[in-house]
Amino acid sequence: MSETQSRLRLLIDDYFTTSFSTENALVNEAVRRMLTAGGKRLRPQLTLLAAEAVGARAEDHVAIATHLELIHVATLIHDDIVDGADERRGVTTVGATFGNRIGVLAGDYLFAWIFATVTANYPAPIPHILSRTLAAICDGEVLQLRSLGDLRIDAAQYTTIVAKKTASLFAAAAECGARCAGADPRLVPALTAFGEHLGIAFQILDDILDLTGDHAIAGKPIGHDLIEGKVTLPLIMALETATTEERAQIAAFFTTSEAEQAPVVAFIHERGGIEQARRRAERCIEEAEQALAPLTQAQRMPLLTFAQTLLSRPPTLQGDHVRC
Amino acid sequence: MSETQSRLRLLIDDYFTTSFSTENALVNEAVRRMLTAGGKRLRPQLTLLAAEAVGARAEDHVAIATHLELIHVATLIHDDIVDGADERRGVTTVGATFGNRIGVLAGDYLFAWIFATVTANYPAPIPHILSRTLAAICDGEVLQLRSLGDLRIDAAQYTTIVAKKTASLFAAAAECGARCAGADPRLVPALTAFGEHLGIAFQILDDILDLTGDHAIAGKPIGHDLIEGKVTLPLIMALETATTEERAQIAAFFTTSEAEQAPVVAFIHERGGIEQARRRAERCIEEAEQALAPLTQAQRMPLLTFAQTLLSRPPTLQGDHVRC
Repeated sequence: MSETQSRLRLLIDDYFTTSFSTENALVNEAVRRMLTAGGKRLRPQLTLLAAEAVGARAEDHVAIATHLELIHVATLIHDDIVDGADERRGVTTVGATFGNRIGVLAGDYLFAWIFATVTANYPAPIPHILSRTLAAICDGEVLQLRSLGDLRIDAAQYTTIVAKKTASLFAAAAECGARCAGADPRLVPALTAFGEHLGIAFQILDDILDLTGDHAIAGKPIGHDLIEGKVTLPLIMALETATTEERAQIAAFFTTSEAEQAPVVAFIHERGGIEQARRRAERCIEEAEQALAPLTQAQRMPLLTFAQTLLSRPPTLQGDHVRC
Repeated sequence: MSETQSRLRLLIDDYFTTSFSTENALVNEAVRRMLTAGGKRLRPQLTLLAAEAVGARAEDHVAIATHLELIHVATLIHDDIVDGADERRGVTTVGATFGNRIGVLAGDYLFAWIFATVTANYPAPIPHILSRTLAAICDGEVLQLRSLGDLRIDAAQYTTIVAKKTASLFAAAAECGARCAGADPRLVPALTAFGEHLGIAFQILDDILDLTGDHAIAGKPIGHDLIEGKVTLPLIMALETATTEERAQIAAFFTTSEAEQAPVVAFIHERGGIEQARRRAERCIEEAEQALAPLTQAQRMPLLTFAQTLLSRPPTLQGDHVRC
């Protein structure tokens, strides 16, 4: 993590500790647990980096930045409910403690609270950007769920899903930072595009981590995505080299038990699926950097460093805590 | 149903049939099912009545009215998920058909879609009213869940919960109708208060229906609320006359099986819980009518008729269909 990122991370976590509070104590507890369970606050960091890039002080835009993280948190609260997860990186989930009804309501309340706060405090189009983005995230997740186990998904379809479910929030994070900081209107699309390309790279790299074992540190088995039936980019890339027979074999293993994922993981590694997906992520990072062309070299630098950090990002560790 | 109500209901259902559509086909299907399962569109009717009361044409405000119904629909989609309901008045639920993950996401998407649409099309404070209202609904539902089975809940605490979980949306419906119609600012609080008092009356009457068997027509057993552990107003009123022993007996029956609710239902009837709750509902209707004092007699009349209809409202029938 760069010095800039450490500084921004501290600002964000301090805000959560000292200034974040809804009127619902249970929702505050749900958010606290989710933040304690880890995460690197990439989305709010991106908001603050975009604001700083156009000349604002990060300190003045921490509140809007935390709303980007809170949208992410609310979706994770609902994810844990529908997954029936008891723990998230060692922290007991809201659903496991208070039951699923409370868990669903806590997520709903948080969405509503975010929009109520943003409509009260930010001018157009900030509230619209955030609500449109949440719709895109849900739409992407529905698309993904409906394509689980479907080995016909190709790289283009994968990218469509990822653009919605992951990259839209990165794009919104950068756009909100730029707009709230009063950026020159010509720079807003550049920073938004930077966020979007970065978000796609982030998801591809996350898919790779699932197959290289680094996620195992966080308590997930290798190939967890495959067990869930997710057709991720490394698998798509590896399948491009598969014969009809091999494809049938993969289909037979796919979406079965954890133990049976080993041959699929091995197949992906052998056929260079990891390397190809990694190259695709690197290309997305390059595209993100190119999107910044309208900015000056000095404006670009911290954003480029941030983008490069993604490529070398370590797995999220349990020690990666927020103090709140 | 009055002639005015039939006319407004037709406008609303026509809009859903011809003009409502999100980009997500599954969410459209989820909404269609929920509307088909019944409901009398009271909230959007209230929006249109408020708009007409201040001189606007209902036809010009159907879109905002349907958003009030959609907030209600989205909360019902999530209710069915957390209840594990397979059917709602004979219509298979989204969760039962597509699974709980899709159900939770469909509700989330719908919330996001409503806010995205409203922030794009309506000026302040409409988007804020809707998001603040959704937060209040969730907050009220959390409060209710946390007080399930607690016989110490009194009429004041009951009213606090109902004001949030039910009346807030009726208040918002009237307020949005008034504001979108460009009402004289002095009339907005009057119409909002009308909606709020009406909403509390509606919930009390709904609680009574649960104990008088009319809900049974819709497939729910008598005393369904009691089985769920809900301490409703008729029970609270009846308990005010109970000895310590009787209270202990009620507590023993409470939240057990359907068959064992019969003595609790009988106790509520014997102690006049139904009549007292009914009188309370009538007082709320009177308060609603009094809130309309700043309006002229002509402006008030259709609203008063609407309020009186609530008091005589029949159970929601299966034949109560929307054509979409």
